[in-house]
Amino acid sequence: MLKRYLPILTWIGEYNRHILGADLVAAVIVTIMLIPQSLAYALLAGLPAQVGLYASILPLVAYAIFGTSRTLSVGPVAVVSLMTAAAASQIASPGSDAYVETTILLALMSGAVLIAMGILRLGMIANFLSHPVISGFVTASGLIIAASQLKHILGIQAHGDDLLTLLSSLASHIADIHWPTLFIGSFALIFLFWSRSFLKPLLLETKLSARSADLLSKTSPVVVVALTTAVTWLGGLDSAGVRIVGAIDAGLPALQIPSLPGEAWRELLMSAVLISIVGFVESVSMAQTLASKRRQRISPDQELIGLGAANVTSSFSGGFPVTGGFSRSVVNYDAGAQTPAAGAFTAVGIAIAALLLTPLIYFLPKATLAATIIVAVLGLVDFQALKRTWDYSRSDFAAMSATLVLTLVDGVETGIMAGVGLSVLLYLYRTSRPHSAVVGRLPGTEHFRNVERFQVETDPAVLTLRVDESLYFANARYLEDRIYELVAQQPKLRHLVLMCPAVNLIDASALESLEAINQRLSDSGVQLHLSEVKGPVMDMLKRTHFLQDLTGKVFLSQYEAWKQLHGEAACHVSTPRITTVP
Amino acid sequence: MLKRYLPILTWIGEYNRHILGADLVAAVIVTIMLIPQSLAYALLAGLPAQVGLYASILPLVAYAIFGTSRTLSVGPVAVVSLMTAAAASQIASPGSDAYVETTILLALMSGAVLIAMGILRLGMIANFLSHPVISGFVTASGLIIAASQLKHILGIQAHGDDLLTLLSSLASHIADIHWPTLFIGSFALIFLFWSRSFLKPLLLETKLSARSADLLSKTSPVVVVALTTAVTWLGGLDSAGVRIVGAIDAGLPALQIPSLPGEAWRELLMSAVLISIVGFVESVSMAQTLASKRRQRISPDQELIGLGAANVTSSFSGGFPVTGGFSRSVVNYDAGAQTPAAGAFTAVGIAIAALLLTPLIYFLPKATLAATIIVAVLGLVDFQALKRTWDYSRSDFAAMSATLVLTLVDGVETGIMAGVGLSVLLYLYRTSRPHSAVVGRLPGTEHFRNVERFQVETDPAVLTLRVDESLYFANARYLEDRIYELVAQQPKLRHLVLMCPAVNLIDASALESLEAINQRLSDSGVQLHLSEVKGPVMDMLKRTHFLQDLTGKVFLSQYEAWKQLHGEAACHVSTPRITTVP
Repeated sequence: MLKRYLPILTWIGEYNRHILGADLVAAVIVTIMLIPQSLAYALLAGLPAQVGLYASILPLVAYAIFGTSRTLSVGPVAVVSLMTAAAASQIASPGSDAYVETTILLALMSGAVLIAMGILRLGMIANFLSHPVISGFVTASGLIIAASQLKHILGIQAHGDDLLTLLSSLASHIADIHWPTLFIGSFALIFLFWSRSFLKPLLLETKLSARSADLLSKTSPVVVVALTTAVTWLGGLDSAGVRIVGAIDAGLPALQIPSLPGEAWRELLMSAVLISIVGFVESVSMAQTLASKRRQRISPDQELIGLGAANVTSSFSGGFPVTGGFSRSVVNYDAGAQTPAAGAFTAVGIAIAALLLTPLIYFLPKATLAATIIVAVLGLVDFQALKRTWDYSRSDFAAMSATLVLTLVDGVETGIMAGVGLSVLLYLYRTSRPHSAVVGRLPGTEHFRNVERFQVETDPAVLTLRVDESLYFANARYLEDRIYELVAQQPKLRHLVLMCPAVNLIDASALESLEAINQRLSDSGVQLHLSEVKGPVMDMLKRTHFLQDLTGKVFLSQYEAWKQLHGEAACHVSTPRITTVP
Repeated sequence: MLKRYLPILTWIGEYNRHILGADLVAAVIVTIMLIPQSLAYALLAGLPAQVGLYASILPLVAYAIFGTSRTLSVGPVAVVSLMTAAAASQIASPGSDAYVETTILLALMSGAVLIAMGILRLGMIANFLSHPVISGFVTASGLIIAASQLKHILGIQAHGDDLLTLLSSLASHIADIHWPTLFIGSFALIFLFWSRSFLKPLLLETKLSARSADLLSKTSPVVVVALTTAVTWLGGLDSAGVRIVGAIDAGLPALQIPSLPGEAWRELLMSAVLISIVGFVESVSMAQTLASKRRQRISPDQELIGLGAANVTSSFSGGFPVTGGFSRSVVNYDAGAQTPAAGAFTAVGIAIAALLLTPLIYFLPKATLAATIIVAVLGLVDFQALKRTWDYSRSDFAAMSATLVLTLVDGVETGIMAGVGLSVLLYLYRTSRPHSAVVGRLPGTEHFRNVERFQVETDPAVLTLRVDESLYFANARYLEDRIYELVAQQPKLRHLVLMCPAVNLIDASALESLEAINQRLSDSGVQLHLSEVKGPVMDMLKRTHFLQDLTGKVFLSQYEAWKQLHGEAACHVSTPRITTVP
């Protein structure tokens, strides 16, 4: 029980020097990767760069205690940072103290929502973010984030939360391009894109092992940070107008209790819920992928608590919403991390950076950070997914493209909510016509098959309809229509059998429909029977008057129904026939 | 084709003197019943009494041409009148010309919505009104309508759209009770309740046929209208303060083109959609019940067009939204109506009443009309349904009670929308854990059954999971969890077979999950196989890379999968075992 809520207890007992070594190596590599990432995502969230470091210390420790993934790397991530910026800028203007306070509050609320969902075991809420919706909003977010960072590369002003506003704002300031900034920014961009594609093959030729080549190629953001910082410092580019990170407070974050203004609280609630769910989905799918590679298990409900604890501690140490990141977690895994202790050691690394490194990043150009963001998020943009989904299913494509377009023109929250709503509607529409087939007996057997596909025995007085889906409000009336149509076509009909081997649920609406069908068939002289009703469904029906009112019987098997109802001699062998079945 | 859109062509050719006689008798009886009803429902909608007559002429003719039910009686009904009053009073104050204009516009919009839904064949939208939602809002509407009419019985002032406001408003004016009004109102109420319960048995004792007794007992509203009008006239009660219908314009409604103010149009759209859907659901379920009694068929999509035409003509003749009514339709059916011509003849009857009868109803007390409304709507109130639904299913009960309570405290529109939203969420929640079972082979057969219920053969290297529901976004991740859990429990596992005989759909999210499962199982050395995949599902999968990426095979039957995968000698007969299956 205690181990369930404190997963640290499952591994701390077995900790040894060997594991320590592996975790330390992974921690060093992840720390090197996380420093520029955390600075960049703070910038993306509209916050001072050091806040990114603050959000990468205590949250990692909290997750190491409460999280169930051995290799997930928690901290600031791109999409959640974008959502944080969108939500906080509704309340306060970026750069103000109130803005920083708002993001701290958002981390607290997001943590509270996650913990509450974990305690209530509501991890399944994340299921409502269908894959097409996630894919659509991630691609759109990637485009918006990249567009929002272009101003740092070009050294101009630009504003806007959606793609069109951003691009037109950029276009209207294009004359102000600051060439030294553009030089640094485009150098960083080209270097990062190049190292993504060509550095690893190059390293492999130098006889490095594949794993070392891979890890080394992932340190290119640190290299570009060091290079451009040095160039800016030596060339005095900051006095030429290149915007730099500048003086930031060295030292660890001050622990604080976030203030809770009532008004802001209500306005932020919806954003906090969406940030929580989006962050959880991103994190848990990564954690599951990594865990199954080593045949380990994660617990989605405990993950909610782990991520919740990370966000609450982020808030208490002046940070903003965090979650498990894709790329860092993969690096952590590849670098050989064995336990969440690797995350705690990374936290120590970041704490040391916060204490000692801040003077060194004084001259770090913002254009460099923007370049690392752009390269990271363009990796998320996946237009191929649109094509693949179009080929697979038009409904899923509709949900995906609606989410994509609405996110681009009206922001992540509108896009997600419209996408979720549309997914649900389309699903209900798809199931609103339950699959069903008129069946007859395969001669000489106890098997019953579709009359349109098989040569089967039928009886003009007995009709058997096999229903292949659960019956509920969205499809109950369709079943009524189908039955009345069949009955109207068959004037000699005396018995109608509903064969229910695949019916897992009959809700109150469907029960009402069955009662109406029973009554109306009775009015026109036809008995209604059921066959092969599943146990749990039967248990529910027994709690109602339906079985007493039923004009016919409930048969355990369709064969028994056939034996009893099939008339004296009237036995017809049908040939497969074509009828119009919708 | 023409017959589909003009159902009148299906019966007008066979019309003869015999059918004419039957239709005329039904028309006379329905006319007598409809006069007080139409006046009362106009009052309920906040309109002058004669508008009720206007809404009962052309709409009936339009439905006779475009409707598919032979016996449905179209006209003003209680719930739709209440919704009309709620929507129109948002725009204009009751009693004003603008209010009348608003209800006329509402009829036009509602007609347009219905016709559009009919042309687009969107009758299935009505399915979203699940039975618990309908039941909850009908009961709540009945209570609100009854409470709103109490002021007419008591002869006092009262205002409010929801139950609490209405009741507290009534309570605060209770000292102003107008005793002559209360006398007439309570006489009418008692007479109507008495005749509902005791008149028919009494008439049966006088050797009338059961059908005549039934029809005669349904004319009691006309009797009470005539009696109380006479008493008011003879006793001069109007000068004593009893509120009466008073002078109304005799004559037929003037045909007019409704004005379309842009602002009101947008504000009314949601209300018009809800009025259309609620009216359609009420009407189509009645039409279906009556049609199946005579083994006739109605077409739900053409019904949308029929009801749409009725509402458009109602609007053009100064009326308000109409639909098919429960009680009148039953009377029409029982009185022997054979074709929709009975409805057209009823329209003639109402037209004559509008021309000649208006002087006679000058002294009709409003308390009498209120009493007929109260008696009619209290018949809709069904608290037993709450109990029945509680016994049957807690989810359905939750949807029903939420709709009931929200309708009472915040009106029909809020109640319906919350109820529909909750129904959908609860359904998705119920299906978010797809039913599945680990199966093994019944020794010596080709059948595979749940390992927990049957003595079956299993193999530590082969695990077969039978999935009993379609896979879609709400349950895809649950399947992932279930599989990883099973794999983690079985260290010797080499093959996992997903048996899919009941999977009718795999949406893009579930496909993504299957791809992840395939990849992750492959990472841990387990092959994924499928068996018994349905044809349409297989066709969809063939359009993707999944089948190429699949580490295992797709088997036509589970038995083939077993034959091929089952190891050399390792054959275990398990005893039924208890495992924790959620």
